[in-house]
Amino acid sequence: MTIKEELAQRASAVENFLEQCLHDRHIPNRLLAAMEYSLLAGGKRLRPVLTLSFAGMLGGDEAKVMPFAASLECIHTYSLIHDDLPAMDDDDLRRGRPSNHKQFDEATAILAGDGLLTEAFVLMAESSLKGGLPADRVLRAVSVLAAAAGAGGMVGGQAVDMEFTGRTDVPLDELLAMNAMKTGALFTEACECGAVLAGAPEADVDNAREFGRSVGVAFQIMDDVLDVVGDTKTLGKPAGSDEAMGKTTYPSLVGLEQSKELADACIQEALDRISTYNGREKEFLVGLSRYIVDRVC
Amino acid sequence: MTIKEELAQRASAVENFLEQCLHDRHIPNRLLAAMEYSLLAGGKRLRPVLTLSFAGMLGGDEAKVMPFAASLECIHTYSLIHDDLPAMDDDDLRRGRPSNHKQFDEATAILAGDGLLTEAFVLMAESSLKGGLPADRVLRAVSVLAAAAGAGGMVGGQAVDMEFTGRTDVPLDELLAMNAMKTGALFTEACECGAVLAGAPEADVDNAREFGRSVGVAFQIMDDVLDVVGDTKTLGKPAGSDEAMGKTTYPSLVGLEQSKELADACIQEALDRISTYNGREKEFLVGLSRYIVDRVC
Repeated sequence: MTIKEELAQRASAVENFLEQCLHDRHIPNRLLAAMEYSLLAGGKRLRPVLTLSFAGMLGGDEAKVMPFAASLECIHTYSLIHDDLPAMDDDDLRRGRPSNHKQFDEATAILAGDGLLTEAFVLMAESSLKGGLPADRVLRAVSVLAAAAGAGGMVGGQAVDMEFTGRTDVPLDELLAMNAMKTGALFTEACECGAVLAGAPEADVDNAREFGRSVGVAFQIMDDVLDVVGDTKTLGKPAGSDEAMGKTTYPSLVGLEQSKELADACIQEALDRISTYNGREKEFLVGLSRYIVDRVC
Repeated sequence: MTIKEELAQRASAVENFLEQCLHDRHIPNRLLAAMEYSLLAGGKRLRPVLTLSFAGMLGGDEAKVMPFAASLECIHTYSLIHDDLPAMDDDDLRRGRPSNHKQFDEATAILAGDGLLTEAFVLMAESSLKGGLPADRVLRAVSVLAAAAGAGGMVGGQAVDMEFTGRTDVPLDELLAMNAMKTGALFTEACECGAVLAGAPEADVDNAREFGRSVGVAFQIMDDVLDVVGDTKTLGKPAGSDEAMGKTTYPSLVGLEQSKELADACIQEALDRISTYNGREKEFLVGLSRYIVDRVC
C-alpha cells in the first residue's frame, strides 16, 4: 500500500465517524445540510489522522481518541468556511465545488462555521463522557487545542493574514510567524493532543508537539508552492489565487526552489523528533511527512 | 441595596475578570481591540451572574467558578457580534455604540466573534487546570454548555430566526421553540453549569436547569415587549426594530398584555423550582427573577 492509499484508508475511517456525528443533535435541517456540505466534502483529513497516529504510536486507544480527532476536522472545516466569506478571502470555490456561502448563503455559512466550531467541543467532551478517556487528559487537550484554534492562534493568524493582504513588503520572519498561527497551531495541537490523550510522558508530548509544529510549517510552504505550480483542477480552487490577491507567500519572497528547500528542512526536523520510536505508526508518520512535501495537491 | 444595585455589583466583579482574561493570550492588537470592544461594552452580565449565584447557593466556591462563568459572557458576546453582521440582522447599533463591524470591519467582526467563542473554551478548561475545579465536573459542564451554544441550541435558534424573518404566520409554539434554542439554551446552561460545578446532587442540577429554562423564556418575551414599549436611548438600539424587520414576536402574536402574563407565568415556574432553598443567593435569585419581568431595558 502506498502512503497515499494508507492516508486515504485512514481518512475514510475519520469520515465514517464524521458522517454520523451530527445526526442526534437536533440541528435545523438547512443548517445541518450546510455544516455537512463542507464537513463531508473530502479533504485529506490530515489533522485527525495525525492525532490518531500519535495516540496509537504512544500506546493510546485509537477508537477512544476518534471523537477528539474528529473535532479537529470540525475546527479546520469551520475555518475554511469563514475564510472563504466575501468579507474575508471571498473565494467562490473550495475543493472543486461552490464554497459554503455560494451554495447556501452568507448568513448560513457564518452559522455553519459557528456550529462546527462549537460542535468540536461537544465531541471533545464526549471523548471522555461517552468514550471513556480520563477527564484530566481530555481537559488538558481541550485547553491547548482551544488556545491554538483561537485568537492567539488560528483566528489571530487569519486576522494578521488579512492585514498582510496587499502588502508586498512582509518579511520572511513575519510570514513564518503568521503561518505558525494560522496553519501551524492546529497541526501542532493535532499531534500534541494525540500524545496527551494517550497519557504519554512529557518528553513524548514535547516530541509530538514539535513534530506537528515543523510539519505545519512545511505544509503551509507547500500549499503556497502548489498555488503557483498546480492547476485549478488538481487544487480544487483557482491556481495563482495568492498572486491575484496580492498575498506575500514563500515563493514570492524566496522563490520556488528555496521554498521547497525550506519545507524539506522542516520535514527533516520533524523526522528527527520521532526517530527513536518504532512500529507501524512511526513508519506511517515518516511516510506522511515525506508525502506532505512531495504531494501535488 | 436594590436588586438592580446588587446585580450591578455582581456584574462589576465579572467585568473585573473579563478585563484581564484576554491579556496573556498573544492576540494581535487590532483583533484584541475588537474582542474587548464588545466584551467590555457593559451589559447586565446576567448569564455569568446566574452561574455564580447557583454555584454559591449549592455550596460551590464562586471564585473558582468565575473563569467558567466568564466564558458564558464570551459566548453571549460572540453571538451578538455575529447576529449584528450585515448578512444577519444588519444592526448598526449595539448598547448605544456602533456595532462591532461598524466600528472595525466585517472581517474583523467575524474573527472577533470566532475568537471569543473559542476563548470561552480556554476559560472553561482553565477553571479546572488553574482554578482547581474537578476535571470531571468541568468536562460535564463543557459538554452541556457547548451543546446549548451550538447548532442544536443557540446557533440553530439564530438560523431558524433568520428563516422566520418576513414570515407573519409563525405559530406561538414554533416561536417558543425557536427562542428556547436562541436565548433559552444559554440561560438554561448558565444555571445548570453553576449547579454541576458546585458538585450538587442531580435533583438540584435539575432544578437549576429548569429555573434557567423558565427565566430564559421570560427574558426573551420581555425583550420583545421592550422592543415595542421602550425607547432607543434606554434600549441602546433602535426601538421597534423587530417590527421594522418583519419579525414575529410575542407582542405581535398575542399582544402586549398577554405577553407580559406569559412572562409572569414563566417567572412563577422558575420561583417554584428554587422555593426550597435558603440564604442570600436564593434571595438574590428571587429578586433577579422579578427584575427580569419588571425591568425597563
